[in-house]
Amino acid sequence: MRSVLTIAGSDSSGGAGIQADIKTIAAHRLFAQSAITALTAQNTTGVYGVVDVPADFVAQQIDVVFDDIRPDAVKIGMVSSSEIIEAIASALTKNGATSIVVDPVMVATSGSSLIADDALAALRGRLLPLATVITPNIPEAEKLCGFSISSESDMEEASDRIFESIEAIDSSCTAAVLVKGGHGVGDPEGSDDLLRLPGGEKVWLRGRRLENPNTHGTGCSLSSAIACGLARGLSVEQAVKEAKEYVAGAIAANLDLGRGRGPLDHMWAFSQGGTIGE
Amino acid sequence: MRSVLTIAGSDSSGGAGIQADIKTIAAHRLFAQSAITALTAQNTTGVYGVVDVPADFVAQQIDVVFDDIRPDAVKIGMVSSSEIIEAIASALTKNGATSIVVDPVMVATSGSSLIADDALAALRGRLLPLATVITPNIPEAEKLCGFSISSESDMEEASDRIFESIEAIDSSCTAAVLVKGGHGVGDPEGSDDLLRLPGGEKVWLRGRRLENPNTHGTGCSLSSAIACGLARGLSVEQAVKEAKEYVAGAIAANLDLGRGRGPLDHMWAFSQGGTIGE
Repeated sequence: MRSVLTIAGSDSSGGAGIQADIKTIAAHRLFAQSAITALTAQNTTGVYGVVDVPADFVAQQIDVVFDDIRPDAVKIGMVSSSEIIEAIASALTKNGATSIVVDPVMVATSGSSLIADDALAALRGRLLPLATVITPNIPEAEKLCGFSISSESDMEEASDRIFESIEAIDSSCTAAVLVKGGHGVGDPEGSDDLLRLPGGEKVWLRGRRLENPNTHGTGCSLSSAIACGLARGLSVEQAVKEAKEYVAGAIAANLDLGRGRGPLDHMWAFSQGGTIGE
Repeated sequence: MRSVLTIAGSDSSGGAGIQADIKTIAAHRLFAQSAITALTAQNTTGVYGVVDVPADFVAQQIDVVFDDIRPDAVKIGMVSSSEIIEAIASALTKNGATSIVVDPVMVATSGSSLIADDALAALRGRLLPLATVITPNIPEAEKLCGFSISSESDMEEASDRIFESIEAIDSSCTAAVLVKGGHGVGDPEGSDDLLRLPGGEKVWLRGRRLENPNTHGTGCSLSSAIACGLARGLSVEQAVKEAKEYVAGAIAANLDLGRGRGPLDHMWAFSQGGTIGE
């Protein structure tokens, strides 16, 4: 059984963070391990408390995982401080980690900010160069490319700029950039995503329109599902396509929990008698 | 979809703690939420670092969960200090929690101690009176009953003493006591467990003999599976029986990961084309 490591925050309500990642990885019948970067006291209505984890302890969690059950892919989510980002980058480099998906989490679905302002530079300078795939939504892509995005051609332009900004830091960068349209560009419920492959090719991935407002943890689940695909040996393009199908199914299952934006049904395929990733 | 809250430590290697609980709850197709009590940097060979979570933040995680997606059952695992135990007991009482499974975790499968000495009194005085089911293994039962256990009749005697010691603290106690034989009483691989029901009836649950040495997280997984049964409305006896079957299947699936005692295959039933808890 192959393994996926999630490096992310904990969401007490179970819908996002390492909890969503573990459910996603288990649903793909891969072995989930975790390095927790922060604890949140959170539910579907908001984030009510955050406790950061010491940076050296984040690194220690990564080290003991690599020392024993070596991950075949890594997903990175909430990284709230530049010290934690530095510790993660050093630990992953030291351990020779590959197949790294970076979800540049900045704001929770509920609207709460999840990253310190000075951490953005560290995220760009230290983590993005390690990435195999980067998965910003529109607001995150805007922060990374420096201009506002209001059309599909803006999304294409943003993906080029983001890649170039990483390449300027590390000329060997081979990151694919997935700009997720779920948050806007005209249609607020749109899920047409742009995948820019490392060579510059643009692939539009047209998603199903889903009416369910319960989307807490969608970004976490998508990025960990992409990591599952990479762990299974899929190409980036195929991993992203299958991950989008997985998340679409988890939204379409219409779980309705909590008073705010509720979580997905990560186990939807089993409830429908099917399987995932076979 | 019903929900189960796990209150426990985090195991970076994914085999025990809240990670095992989340996998177990997801495998039962229930909704997993969590309140993390401690972070461990751990793998199958040992526990290499522990960071305790502030007691008030443990309580806050429980509060935000109950305020939104109310759990139908609660599982309590690693609680390393008397302050954390006090915070958990107060939060569960305030929120009117029911169907509580307490796994009195003291030592990890790898041999590492997971509870401070002075926390044992708090565990006994504050948490056990809230329990619907208590799940000590032989060493834990010995600590709770005060004598050493070397036979099945010792296990029966221990279950009575443990119940009486709780009843002395809270006369309305209705806890079932499951003394798990997996750790010994003659057969070191035995899995014959004694369930003492609140009225005093003793039920012996004879387990399958399993040769797999990879049992990291077995206790966590069993207690969260029992909580899943209670959340689904099963009787205590039926919940324990089904949980034993679930864990036996997860061991029998013969996952072999890591250099020490490896983890279970929590998703075994799906890999075999079946389902759990239907």
